[in-house]
Amino acid sequence: MNSAHRAPGATELIALIQATCEPLSTASVPLADALGRVLREPVRAPEDQPAFDRSAVDGYAVRGDDNSTEFRIVDEIRAGDWKPRELKCGESVRIATGGALPAADLQVVMKEDAETSGNLVRVLRRTPDRNVRFRGEDAACGQTLVESSTGLTAGALALLASFGYTAPRVSQLPRVVHLATGNELVAPEEIPLQGQIRDSNSTLVCAFLQPHGIAPQQLRLAEDEAALENALHTSAETADLILISGGASVGSHDYTRRSLEKNGFEVLVSKTTTRPGKPLIFARRGPVIAFGLPGNPLAHFVCLNLFVHAALERFAGLAPGHFWRRGVLASELAAGGNARETFWPAACSEDLGVQKLTPLRWSSSGDLTALATANALIRVEGSATSLARGTTVEFIIT
Amino acid sequence: MNSAHRAPGATELIALIQATCEPLSTASVPLADALGRVLREPVRAPEDQPAFDRSAVDGYAVRGDDNSTEFRIVDEIRAGDWKPRELKCGESVRIATGGALPAADLQVVMKEDAETSGNLVRVLRRTPDRNVRFRGEDAACGQTLVESSTGLTAGALALLASFGYTAPRVSQLPRVVHLATGNELVAPEEIPLQGQIRDSNSTLVCAFLQPHGIAPQQLRLAEDEAALENALHTSAETADLILISGGASVGSHDYTRRSLEKNGFEVLVSKTTTRPGKPLIFARRGPVIAFGLPGNPLAHFVCLNLFVHAALERFAGLAPGHFWRRGVLASELAAGGNARETFWPAACSEDLGVQKLTPLRWSSSGDLTALATANALIRVEGSATSLARGTTVEFIIT
Repeated sequence: MNSAHRAPGATELIALIQATCEPLSTASVPLADALGRVLREPVRAPEDQPAFDRSAVDGYAVRGDDNSTEFRIVDEIRAGDWKPRELKCGESVRIATGGALPAADLQVVMKEDAETSGNLVRVLRRTPDRNVRFRGEDAACGQTLVESSTGLTAGALALLASFGYTAPRVSQLPRVVHLATGNELVAPEEIPLQGQIRDSNSTLVCAFLQPHGIAPQQLRLAEDEAALENALHTSAETADLILISGGASVGSHDYTRRSLEKNGFEVLVSKTTTRPGKPLIFARRGPVIAFGLPGNPLAHFVCLNLFVHAALERFAGLAPGHFWRRGVLASELAAGGNARETFWPAACSEDLGVQKLTPLRWSSSGDLTALATANALIRVEGSATSLARGTTVEFIIT
Repeated sequence: MNSAHRAPGATELIALIQATCEPLSTASVPLADALGRVLREPVRAPEDQPAFDRSAVDGYAVRGDDNSTEFRIVDEIRAGDWKPRELKCGESVRIATGGALPAADLQVVMKEDAETSGNLVRVLRRTPDRNVRFRGEDAACGQTLVESSTGLTAGALALLASFGYTAPRVSQLPRVVHLATGNELVAPEEIPLQGQIRDSNSTLVCAFLQPHGIAPQQLRLAEDEAALENALHTSAETADLILISGGASVGSHDYTRRSLEKNGFEVLVSKTTTRPGKPLIFARRGPVIAFGLPGNPLAHFVCLNLFVHAALERFAGLAPGHFWRRGVLASELAAGGNARETFWPAACSEDLGVQKLTPLRWSSSGDLTALATANALIRVEGSATSLARGTTVEFIIT
């Protein structure tokens, strides 16, 4: 597929990214580092869970077939104890919740249904409930606990911990290099001279990657073709993903493309019809993926959330999923009739089961104020002029 | 309000937690540490943005009132340059996207609408569009950019960076101590002896807190009242939030309560009607909050996501929000008619704008396998027996 000379739309480009990026290799990581990582092998129960019959209540264990009303307390079992013994008729064992039953075929009479006097217990009420969590009740040995390609949640990690599965095999995190280019850029903590602006894209890229557990290596470069070529030469050897924040001009786009090609990258796409985000570059060199991101902050935001997101999902080994959500406009969206498919920043909130989207004001891909409250991007079809309040729209959460 | 001797339901208890916990004090943090933190002061624009008129395209700046078709190129301005000059009729400046306009009242003719020959440019097409991003177009000096109590997203951080606002004042993170008690517990990496189980709650608590940016101090204690009392004595001096994972037994619940009281805590609640999660303790000593969490993993999961979550939101300074979402059952929920309000683990996914909830199998609060895929808890009213597929339900995302 040679897309370099055409401009794919967002859906087509996402499909190309999904087809191009490969899941990264795997590594075993400690549970403490595994939250949000994607499991790359199925995990099966190495034993029954519970591993032994446990009392579900505080009470008195007696034989199930013993209809006595008064029992002699012959032992006490707390959680963690292991005191196997057969019980005779008329015998009982005081047992705490979680305690291992001393034998099979017992019933636990709840503490509340009995009264004691010395080492005797009198049963006031006997229900059919055995009050036992039986061995294997939650999981049987060999059963699949977590499927491969599952993102590990806190709950899944607790489950793995309970089986002693303390080093799950997950996708490695991509090594990301971010190069911010542009003569007009100064660091956020610096005072720009006249004509300069502060670099906000480095902050954006870093924060965008953080929930993925990725700390990029970041470099700010002057708008200099040789400097970029050189930085790419080094990065391509060590990174899985290279993000280049371009300068705003056409010239900057051109030399980003040239620098990638000189470093042996195949440029698969050099522009999209996506608005904002048109001058996007998507390139690869073997398994190494590079994006040239248009320098304007809103375009950056859109390209990160649509395209880099799709690459990260594939690197992690997630199956290409369901991308677009559906919601309803909470106010009119004055789309303006632009011919290109537009991704419109919006604030999304749930209201009685419906995702309500409030479109935010923006007029230029250089705008940033909409990003204060944006948590969604609405997909607006090309040529749409105005979408009324209540219109059903597709969107992504950012 | 003395709730210690009654058992509030989830909604009532959440309201009590919201009323009891106070926003923590604030600190200025670097942007790199600020993702997800809650801003505690409004941020206003210290200057116009853009701070100067910038070209929106690559092209040729000419006087707006100059109707010539051929212009002499008298200068070149790239992004980052500062070259103020008045233009005479017949003069133009080659300017790159992002470049500072050299004077007021100019128009930029797009590169595509012109052709050059030496230092002359001939305009082929002139549109009404001035192709300028005007000073203050995105934000005017003094305008509120981000409201207080806003959770800082990647986009909001980029906005702050663009204004040089590199140390936002946010809520401090709570210092959390987690004490896991129980004689039956061994670390996940150990082989349990007969009658013992692996501690999964420490993994759960740690992973639950991680997205909040909190790394708890964790300690595993034998089921020993003196040890707990002692650990509480130390923790209450240094922590904002103490989480005690109880043993499963009634005895464990009793001594957790006693240990808190001996350390000067006021126990506000010592049980709830919530299922699973009944023997929950909620206590305070001045601003320090303690939860005694029932030891069973599923009960732990429910109490963390309902009650500890509510406390963390308040600590962060978020306004008590909209708690319950609404969705539709994707399959029957066989609730079993339990008298208590139940929080049922479920897998939630979006389908054409509707949140579809698939209830997961569980039979005991000690169950863990449902946590492999649970990302939601459905709220099931007390005494409900069976909820049909398609029933609208309330839930939280976990």
